[in-house]
Amino acid sequence: MNAPGRDEIESVMLAMGEAARAAARALALAPSDQKNRALKAMAAAIRADAAIIASENAKDVADGKGRGLKASFVDRLTLTQDRIEAMARGLEEIAQLPDPVGNVMAEWTRPNGLRISRVRVPIGVIGIVYESRPNVTADAGGLCLKSGNAAILRGGSDGLRSSAAIAAALGKGLAEAGLPTAAIQIVPVTDRAAVGHMLSGLGGAIDVIVPRGGKSLVARVQDEARVPTFSHLEGICHVYVDKDADPEIARSVVLNSKMRRTGVCGAAETVLIDRSGGQAGEIVRMLIDAGCEVRGDAEIAAVDPRVKPASEEDWASEYLDAIVSVGAVAGVDEAIAHIARYGSQHTDSIVTTNAETAERFLREVDSAIVLHNASTQFADGGEFGFGAEIGIATGKLHARGPVGVEQLTTFKYVVRGSGQTRP
Amino acid sequence: MNAPGRDEIESVMLAMGEAARAAARALALAPSDQKNRALKAMAAAIRADAAIIASENAKDVADGKGRGLKASFVDRLTLTQDRIEAMARGLEEIAQLPDPVGNVMAEWTRPNGLRISRVRVPIGVIGIVYESRPNVTADAGGLCLKSGNAAILRGGSDGLRSSAAIAAALGKGLAEAGLPTAAIQIVPVTDRAAVGHMLSGLGGAIDVIVPRGGKSLVARVQDEARVPTFSHLEGICHVYVDKDADPEIARSVVLNSKMRRTGVCGAAETVLIDRSGGQAGEIVRMLIDAGCEVRGDAEIAAVDPRVKPASEEDWASEYLDAIVSVGAVAGVDEAIAHIARYGSQHTDSIVTTNAETAERFLREVDSAIVLHNASTQFADGGEFGFGAEIGIATGKLHARGPVGVEQLTTFKYVVRGSGQTRP
Repeated sequence: MNAPGRDEIESVMLAMGEAARAAARALALAPSDQKNRALKAMAAAIRADAAIIASENAKDVADGKGRGLKASFVDRLTLTQDRIEAMARGLEEIAQLPDPVGNVMAEWTRPNGLRISRVRVPIGVIGIVYESRPNVTADAGGLCLKSGNAAILRGGSDGLRSSAAIAAALGKGLAEAGLPTAAIQIVPVTDRAAVGHMLSGLGGAIDVIVPRGGKSLVARVQDEARVPTFSHLEGICHVYVDKDADPEIARSVVLNSKMRRTGVCGAAETVLIDRSGGQAGEIVRMLIDAGCEVRGDAEIAAVDPRVKPASEEDWASEYLDAIVSVGAVAGVDEAIAHIARYGSQHTDSIVTTNAETAERFLREVDSAIVLHNASTQFADGGEFGFGAEIGIATGKLHARGPVGVEQLTTFKYVVRGSGQTRP
Repeated sequence: MNAPGRDEIESVMLAMGEAARAAARALALAPSDQKNRALKAMAAAIRADAAIIASENAKDVADGKGRGLKASFVDRLTLTQDRIEAMARGLEEIAQLPDPVGNVMAEWTRPNGLRISRVRVPIGVIGIVYESRPNVTADAGGLCLKSGNAAILRGGSDGLRSSAAIAAALGKGLAEAGLPTAAIQIVPVTDRAAVGHMLSGLGGAIDVIVPRGGKSLVARVQDEARVPTFSHLEGICHVYVDKDADPEIARSVVLNSKMRRTGVCGAAETVLIDRSGGQAGEIVRMLIDAGCEVRGDAEIAAVDPRVKPASEEDWASEYLDAIVSVGAVAGVDEAIAHIARYGSQHTDSIVTTNAETAERFLREVDSAIVLHNASTQFADGGEFGFGAEIGIATGKLHARGPVGVEQLTTFKYVVRGSGQTRP
């Protein structure tokens, strides 16, 4: 399309907001069965349109390479047949999840006979701002639909053709099930002003924004959003190895937390080791032997010559890479204090056989997820049994930890009486 | 105090934020028993300091009268001995409430043996911005303490001496129970810039803001706050009288919803009457005879010469007075559409004997509280069994409806394993 002017962008965006609100009203009342039919029809349409999606994606990829995008970026942008099939399968899996809408979360009767219930209802309109992965279009659109919310999706401009082709397929599925196609809309303009409009809420049309992408994207969204966000800026996750840790569990939990996948937000970035446990040497050597760069304090540096010195900055770094900072501490209190100072309230784990020490850590560490004798890489909606997640939130309100379909709902109070009036 | 400069205000406010965060860490771990001892000691200190509180309040009242404050404002500002005793009793009642902190909201085991529980924890630091009622100092401070949160209170400048005297008593109670006095702090400067700092979150120190006061205060907070708020701008509450309404229930629910207290946010402002039910005449005459001004559409105006014509503006008005807008509608669908257009998603009620119509209304009206055959004036934490409330929220996220101690908490996931790693 031609580059639109400022006013034009604003009017396009506001119209999307209005259409989303109207669609949200319909979705909120749609029966589970109809939403699930739509999800399955969306999956079928993605498979039927696989060739179109692939060819549109090929154009995005060619353009991206032409603009000299990094290889890792191009990889995330590329939709192979496997990835297209994975999108379709993901939608079918969302169809299988229980529908949270209408669930009675609590119910009680008052002395005056009023029956009060707290019932799950959709939030309304969710805005999703993401970067180069076009598959977010299907994943996020599907999760919003299942939870009865309309979605306004704004993908990275480098993947716009891919996302548009996916969104077109989703629209066919929605229409086939008799749901409004405005239930899942994609922002058609690449101008960054469009994101600004979304972050300001489109005149009250957007209830919550979910950013999906790197730290700079999330930082911009958190800084500028005038509506609540479900997000985490970074995952500076810790494993604390207590003096009473089982050595085998300590090694396997540390290794898995750091090295299973280094690029995920639940990957450990710092290992704290109780100096009185005598396990530092073995853990540090294991990490280095596994190909991980270890940056340690003076005490840790003394255990192996391959350890590099950690700077103050290291304790506050999310490497998302095969690098780890390792520090010696004088027990669980010092570990808790370190995590309070440098952590990001995402996910932190303690390894110990001492139940009392474990409970201290689980209680006192103020993070969305705290674990005992388990890998930080379990920080994931699927691993929690939520089926699929739209992201992980480290904010305190509403959704904390993995954000699945249930976390995309709110509630209302339904009060049933027989003529009660208040004295 | 001398009028402080801009920089001084900022540094005072930031220091309060830091002190609140430190206090919040202690409060989060304080046992229920200690918090309850503090609440009881706070009540005792309020009683012991009653004379000081009254004399400080007398100065505020005298100054206010001197400045020509409205009588209703002066009334809200005035602390009688009864009102001081009510504050003390309120704190004792909060002590009796169950402690939400530590409650396990849900618990499940994954196939890999991980035990996951969702546990209630305090939010952290709550900012409360209020107007002339000095008793909010005790009520809000007590609710925040019970839920393990630190409170930063900013009352109206007209009542600063009263609030400071109350806060001093609360501080004695906190100290007596061994809790940090920074758990409940009052902003000592009257400059409005202090509110601006609070609304920007004090550098991340404040997690949520609760405005308590009139529409202009709430509007300012909602517009300017960079942190989430628990608030409602207005309560444009509706009673819909269906054609199948029991006439006696219709009359008593309408009368109570409108006239029990006209100044509360749960008071009805609009009555919608199904024209095929033939009940408009009786309801309108009853309201007028009870001293309520009725503003009606043409059809309603025809039933009684005392009805004044309703303008478009009337349907969107929160009178908070003995005035009501009344409209004739063609059934529940038109009522739902009217509420969607003009309502404030606060509290709406249907009167009908038809269960199917009732369920339609309860399901389709997107308000925090929806009622069947009951007065809208039940929109109150106490009436819900929450014990006490800090306010009513109409936002979609986290807290919706009455905000009691439970709504002042969030949760974290506690995961207990035996060495699990992620494949």
